[in-house]
Amino acid sequence: MYDVAKIRADFPILSREVNGKPLVYLDNGASAQKPQVVIDAITRAYSHEYANVHRGLHYLSNLATEKYESVRGTVARFLGAADENEIVLNSGTTEGINMVAYGWAMPRMEAGDEIVLSVMEHHANIVPWHFLRERQGVQLKWVDVDSRGVLDPQKVIDAIGPRTKLIAITHLSNVLGTVVDVKAICQAAREKGVPVLVDGSQAAVHMPVDVSDIGCDFYAVTGHKLYGPSGSGAIYARKERMEEMRPFLGGGDMIREVTKDSVTYNDPPMKFEAGTPGIVQMIGLGVALDYMMGLGMDNIAAHEASLARYAAERLSGLNWLNVQGTAPGKAAIFSFTMQGAAHAHDISTILDKKGVAVRAGHHCAGPLMEHLGTPATCRASFGLYNTEAEVDVLIDALELAHELFG
Amino acid sequence: MYDVAKIRADFPILSREVNGKPLVYLDNGASAQKPQVVIDAITRAYSHEYANVHRGLHYLSNLATEKYESVRGTVARFLGAADENEIVLNSGTTEGINMVAYGWAMPRMEAGDEIVLSVMEHHANIVPWHFLRERQGVQLKWVDVDSRGVLDPQKVIDAIGPRTKLIAITHLSNVLGTVVDVKAICQAAREKGVPVLVDGSQAAVHMPVDVSDIGCDFYAVTGHKLYGPSGSGAIYARKERMEEMRPFLGGGDMIREVTKDSVTYNDPPMKFEAGTPGIVQMIGLGVALDYMMGLGMDNIAAHEASLARYAAERLSGLNWLNVQGTAPGKAAIFSFTMQGAAHAHDISTILDKKGVAVRAGHHCAGPLMEHLGTPATCRASFGLYNTEAEVDVLIDALELAHELFG
Repeated sequence: MYDVAKIRADFPILSREVNGKPLVYLDNGASAQKPQVVIDAITRAYSHEYANVHRGLHYLSNLATEKYESVRGTVARFLGAADENEIVLNSGTTEGINMVAYGWAMPRMEAGDEIVLSVMEHHANIVPWHFLRERQGVQLKWVDVDSRGVLDPQKVIDAIGPRTKLIAITHLSNVLGTVVDVKAICQAAREKGVPVLVDGSQAAVHMPVDVSDIGCDFYAVTGHKLYGPSGSGAIYARKERMEEMRPFLGGGDMIREVTKDSVTYNDPPMKFEAGTPGIVQMIGLGVALDYMMGLGMDNIAAHEASLARYAAERLSGLNWLNVQGTAPGKAAIFSFTMQGAAHAHDISTILDKKGVAVRAGHHCAGPLMEHLGTPATCRASFGLYNTEAEVDVLIDALELAHELFG
Repeated sequence: MYDVAKIRADFPILSREVNGKPLVYLDNGASAQKPQVVIDAITRAYSHEYANVHRGLHYLSNLATEKYESVRGTVARFLGAADENEIVLNSGTTEGINMVAYGWAMPRMEAGDEIVLSVMEHHANIVPWHFLRERQGVQLKWVDVDSRGVLDPQKVIDAIGPRTKLIAITHLSNVLGTVVDVKAICQAAREKGVPVLVDGSQAAVHMPVDVSDIGCDFYAVTGHKLYGPSGSGAIYARKERMEEMRPFLGGGDMIREVTKDSVTYNDPPMKFEAGTPGIVQMIGLGVALDYMMGLGMDNIAAHEASLARYAAERLSGLNWLNVQGTAPGKAAIFSFTMQGAAHAHDISTILDKKGVAVRAGHHCAGPLMEHLGTPATCRASFGLYNTEAEVDVLIDALELAHELFG
């Protein structure tokens, strides 16, 4: 039994007011709020259990190391990785994808080699590949979505050519809410010997993820969207890819021995974790993932699917609103523009006056905005603690914006 | 008036026991403990003021952005930077130095070009340069220290040759406590047109730093050693160097526009801050630096200098102990080995039983260990909250270790 009122009570910020109104937080696509257990874990770590990890032998260092290292197993369980040594802990998806770009792709891609991307990618899954284009002549090959925002996996598979070295694709669009059939893409790509990086920043928040079932080579997630601390994250990397990958960040911990003339590296995944990590954020991430798994990812997905249906229905009743993205089974993420003169920023300002937090802008998805033919949209993105009553508040606030600007 | 008892009361962890003894935390070189104001700032941020930064227009996003962005000015003030736009916020020194290696050095260094380093560098200021050696044939040129651990700045200056493109040097050795005259090095290097990167991980903790006075090109610091959260940090980069530097991590925020075929970048420093940053850690870092500046960096330095004198005197009374590093004016960082069979790890284990947390190992300083002719030392590193009474506990515990192992 998914008791959303009880769940809401776990998140202290949800009981605050904004502009004299109860906060209706619909900006989860940008970052999610944190349950008290995560905040408490951070406080406890700094107040009673803090030290640097790995290199100490004293009590606090051992304690912190044990707590930190246990997160690797939690992430592996959360993502369905067979081996926790296929998990690299990091600061989030941006670092994870850059690690793959610099460590795996850069040394093995030449001018004319191709990376296949969808037009729905977030800049975190675009700019690192643009670097390879700018710096070594790699070609980016874009696959379009249809008018509903559906990405046909066959179109991605058909885009694979003899020079394709990587497919880099989102599992769930942060703007349209479209869920991509990454499993079908991975299966076909594997037959053609092309690795697939999946940007799971959004998907892992909203649905159960099983990288073993998907069959991807890399799967990147970011902790602050997963109800965990800012600056936390992880990337799954299939064992063979990890072995092929050269180190990305250089520093402490990722080495075995350093002399004046040489350096030998630690075994993966440590090889890819340089310097003092985000110790306390990672401990907090572990607690956040346990919290989500405690609720049950299937239950979260079911709750959000029901919210998505309700929101879609109510939004469709506003005939002056254009909702971008109507893919079947889409997640509870709704981008929209208002007919008439209102700029997305103006709409979000009005919603804010009613306590409703949404995002307005390009959502770090330039090519998709180009595809949609708009420089900016508003986006209401739901999380595990949102309710139908909050959808109603959103609708009322939109009606007010329409009165003012429509 | 520097009231160390009052200061200690600000740090909740210092009142805990370890192995039934009051914690004597002398592992500050690895990471420092956090004052309650920092912990409270983190709790407040997550409980009441959390949202993603920069891209939102709603109340919480504006609030978080304002708090986050104000840290840039705090860091600038702390480091004496003339312009806060010369500060890049990041996850710590490792990321900062890697940014310079990948973004500034990699595109402008060719096989045979040289980087001058001291033998005292931390792996964070070695391994990124080894990458350039391995990947593009850059030469590393090492400058030795004398038997006391003193680094003669003239030897660094003399090492500059026609192919020298960068000097990468620590301001304060994490093993020996030696303070390096980086100002003299920077002045001479500037005349020869060679930029200098200073690793300030340790120095900024123990003494006032003024990058304008030093005249360096880059100055990297790490928040978790500065009594701030794990996963926080910053690097000062002189305006001209920032303009020369290509972006390092690709993702959101660091771009102006992204299309399928092109990307244009944001202005520095945003150009070098990709993706959602460590929002709450950075807010905590700002509070930590304000806390330090509130105590007064000169006062902290004076307190620690007095502690260093006391500890040096008491340690010199143990004639079976070898202390590595006796440079005049050294910081309160003491590495030592025990004559006889005791391994550094065994000593630290005994100290731990007495509640004394020290580090044992290579301290991420392989070349220095080679120079010292030992695979490992113990290191007691002091911070702003340590006391002479704690030095006495350390001495007693060392005497016990000597009885057992000596």
